Amino acid sequence: MRPLFHPQVDDIRVEAILHALSDPARAALFAQIAAAGGAQTCTAAAGGACQAIPKSTLSQHFKVLREAGLIRSERQGVEMRNTARCADIEARFPGLLPAIIEAHKRQAS
Amino acid sequence: MRPLFHPQVDDIRVEAILHALSDPARAALFAQIAAAGGAQTCTAAAGGACQAIPKSTLSQHFKVLREAGLIRSERQGVEMRNTARCADIEARFPGLLPAIIEAHKRQAS
Repeated sequence: MRPLFHPQVDDIRVEAILHALSDPARAALFAQIAAAGGAQTCTAAAGGACQAIPKSTLSQHFKVLREAGLIRSERQGVEMRNTARCADIEARFPGLLPAIIEAHKRQAS
Repeated sequence: MRPLFHPQVDDIRVEAILHALSDPARAALFAQIAAAGGAQTCTAAAGGACQAIPKSTLSQHFKVLREAGLIRSERQGVEMRNTARCADIEARFPGLLPAIIEAHKRQAS
């Protein structure tokens, strides 16, 4: 099984974050992982905002979030556990993540 | 000549802003228009960050920025004058634009 790629904090790129969160479904998925705090399995995360999303699409969304540096994924048996890398993003780009999440919330309300 | 499309403030979408600013050249172009304050012609704007960009690509960048609600473009003779809609974006999504511009600056430095 190939190792999962996670960028180092200093290698996190603003364009990758903006691209990853420019998709509403992906932004909702990320918001849910971030809100959950602890590690969440893909199926648990998908149970909320993204029930209608096919598994292959969901797996692609997790890959984009992971490679942008937004989440950390760990294989546990057949499941994948995801945690938000909020502290890493905050260290790299202070204020960026809260502003984006707030904008999505505002638009949804 | 077709009229230029500019979204109303309430129709500005967070995903369109994130997409528009996820391209480094487009983000640099927007930052320059925003920093210039007054209206800037395309060629003046392109004179700074984006000298190496072909005119057709540049015109596409302006279109994406305009349709995302980030700039207002006005035809003046053969030139196009662009102004940043910072106040509109700030009204719609407070704090979003400064956070994104700051993140790009931080990454560039």
